[in-house]
Amino acid sequence: MKATPVKGTADYLPSQTLLRDYMQNVILETYRSAGFERILTPTIEHLENLEKSDGGDNLNLMFKIMKRGEKLTEAIAAGGNENSLADLGLRYDLTLPLSRFYAANRAKLNNPFKCIQIDKSYRAERPQKGRMREFIQCDIDILGSDSPLCELELIHTTATALNKLEIGSFTIKINDRRLLKSCLAACGVQDNQMDTVCISLDKWDKIGADGVKAELEGKEIAADVIEKLLTLLNGERSLESVASFCGESQELTNIRQLIENVRHLAKGTYGAEFDLLLVRGQGYYTGTVFEIQSNQFRGSIGGGGRYDGLIGKFTGENIPAVGFSIGFERIFAILQEQGYAIPSRQRRIAVLCNEDEAVGAMELAETLRQNGDGIGLYTRPKKMGKFLNRLEEQGFDGYLVFGEASEPKLFEKQR
Amino acid sequence: MKATPVKGTADYLPSQTLLRDYMQNVILETYRSAGFERILTPTIEHLENLEKSDGGDNLNLMFKIMKRGEKLTEAIAAGGNENSLADLGLRYDLTLPLSRFYAANRAKLNNPFKCIQIDKSYRAERPQKGRMREFIQCDIDILGSDSPLCELELIHTTATALNKLEIGSFTIKINDRRLLKSCLAACGVQDNQMDTVCISLDKWDKIGADGVKAELEGKEIAADVIEKLLTLLNGERSLESVASFCGESQELTNIRQLIENVRHLAKGTYGAEFDLLLVRGQGYYTGTVFEIQSNQFRGSIGGGGRYDGLIGKFTGENIPAVGFSIGFERIFAILQEQGYAIPSRQRRIAVLCNEDEAVGAMELAETLRQNGDGIGLYTRPKKMGKFLNRLEEQGFDGYLVFGEASEPKLFEKQR
Repeated sequence: MKATPVKGTADYLPSQTLLRDYMQNVILETYRSAGFERILTPTIEHLENLEKSDGGDNLNLMFKIMKRGEKLTEAIAAGGNENSLADLGLRYDLTLPLSRFYAANRAKLNNPFKCIQIDKSYRAERPQKGRMREFIQCDIDILGSDSPLCELELIHTTATALNKLEIGSFTIKINDRRLLKSCLAACGVQDNQMDTVCISLDKWDKIGADGVKAELEGKEIAADVIEKLLTLLNGERSLESVASFCGESQELTNIRQLIENVRHLAKGTYGAEFDLLLVRGQGYYTGTVFEIQSNQFRGSIGGGGRYDGLIGKFTGENIPAVGFSIGFERIFAILQEQGYAIPSRQRRIAVLCNEDEAVGAMELAETLRQNGDGIGLYTRPKKMGKFLNRLEEQGFDGYLVFGEASEPKLFEKQR
Repeated sequence: MKATPVKGTADYLPSQTLLRDYMQNVILETYRSAGFERILTPTIEHLENLEKSDGGDNLNLMFKIMKRGEKLTEAIAAGGNENSLADLGLRYDLTLPLSRFYAANRAKLNNPFKCIQIDKSYRAERPQKGRMREFIQCDIDILGSDSPLCELELIHTTATALNKLEIGSFTIKINDRRLLKSCLAACGVQDNQMDTVCISLDKWDKIGADGVKAELEGKEIAADVIEKLLTLLNGERSLESVASFCGESQELTNIRQLIENVRHLAKGTYGAEFDLLLVRGQGYYTGTVFEIQSNQFRGSIGGGGRYDGLIGKFTGENIPAVGFSIGFERIFAILQEQGYAIPSRQRRIAVLCNEDEAVGAMELAETLRQNGDGIGLYTRPKKMGKFLNRLEEQGFDGYLVFGEASEPKLFEKQR
């Protein structure tokens, strides 16, 4: 048998699990405290729903679950292919299941519905630090309201959770896809070229202006359009320059107000700025998009946006919706790297006893647990010194030998 | 798209999620308090490991994940079947992943290793109340010790968690597979008939003595052997009658002592009794087996046993191991049915404001959160009465209209 976990997944040791549980609790309690309500949806989803979800590149990274029994036999006999052999899949994010959930349960929910999801998703990506094939996402969403205050609330609540986790300084980048598209239209990009041009622009930070230019030429965008685009994008790309380039608009007013409000609530504990080139991969975003950039670590540690069309795919009726997702694995990797120490955790004490004293020792342990300590029972070892060293290494705070003492003896901390 | 969740899985509304989170916290804190350490393992596992794990009937209920890309194309071209098309599976329990984890990480763990797992597993069973295809199990295991005190500790710790969840009275049924096999041998059952006879005996409660007799006859067990078996099993099946039937043994001494110790620690808060017919399905159990029987509800709400051989399949070395698993979904169904009210939860207050007051209202909400309340922000509705009724229905405790009051107004409780 294979002792290593499946590629892109991980086993977590007790100390790592303590940190992961602590992180989840901080995030969950911050979100609950802000009046959001947690729901749970299944990890396995109808393949049909996933396939129709506008998930962009994620659809190519899906884990698909094989049909079973007779259905599988029939599919194989009919010359099965990738699509006919499977009928379920592991979800690639929490947004599609939320949309399905909302469509099924709308009558039982508050309106607007302010929702928490903290759970696993799966993508068969190339694994790298902080990017797993099995990963936890922490999402808040507001469904049923098109007010720009939703964006404000999501951004500030998410930032509050990150501050409580002490991940260091970070900036929220904010854009509106419609704003970017207005600019592109003003440069002469045709409607049917919008998506492909956006995909190239999204790579600006990675491949630079020349790389983007080459890609756009490869996509047969007219030379004068490319030139106008590059003039705009090589400029300062501020809200003011966008305004002077393609005029004032409701989107521009909203985003200006949003950034001002975010900064007011942030009181300097995090940053917020406009980023015209922020696109985000998912096809389902329709308006505002945002992303969290750590100022010490490369890459995004969270993101989200408005997806007013997705729920309508289930209900037939347009329901405004906006969500923000924290990249849990990325933040876990950052905190681990920092050697982050969890504030004020439970003390851990070992009670050592002989086999024939065990029942009495268990009764003593129950008494000691009353004050909130974690009390583990161990048979008295032959080599006491070695055993105690091991306990200390494993994070125990002290020990008590049954029959010899009534109070735990604490290890001297080496740090 | 389909709005209902996949068969055998469920969406959980906010109130249900609160209960599930509460249950998990109570169980986790009880286990941590008893000195156990939580680990996490992936939900997806090498199919090869799952197939070789002696999982009994569970192997027929597996969800298998299809190969991807070129591997899949090759498997289809080679006339793919159920086994060649998949290379991963969703785990059917937490014991096999734990064995793999222990084999991979042994050097970094305490010895004995006292371990908590609370996580999802998957079985494509026929769904029924409290039995889901996607379900949570809550396990504690002790690896690296063959002392019967492990059984005592697991049973008492599990029972403590159940008592904290107030699930009503319950009894722990205890057996040792070796004891049952000694009895069967004394009746003349051959070694190679043991497993199939055990499978029939496991159905005693469902199909009765006559049903078991008919099954054994169908399996061509000799008539005199069947007669001896039925004489034994129609008797009182106490430890004493087993002792007089096939003599004293170490297993008998251990189990007698175990039951006595459990009863001593239980102090009447739960029951413990010997059950010679308790078998448990998994093939990997080698010694003691146990099961929790609620006295109000049919069926088992948890179980476990000793599996000294499983870890050796990874390490090549025999590591003693024993575990106890709570059936989370069954207990969730029981508490829901009882209309269980979570003790002392966070208060939930809505702050209502006009759109143009939102930033000020958010600042007020942050202040109100300091005392631990959950404070949700809502735009002031046109129909205030209807909106307030809705909030109360959804479990809010009160509300505050921004600019009109500084303290929340609490709803009068109708219960």
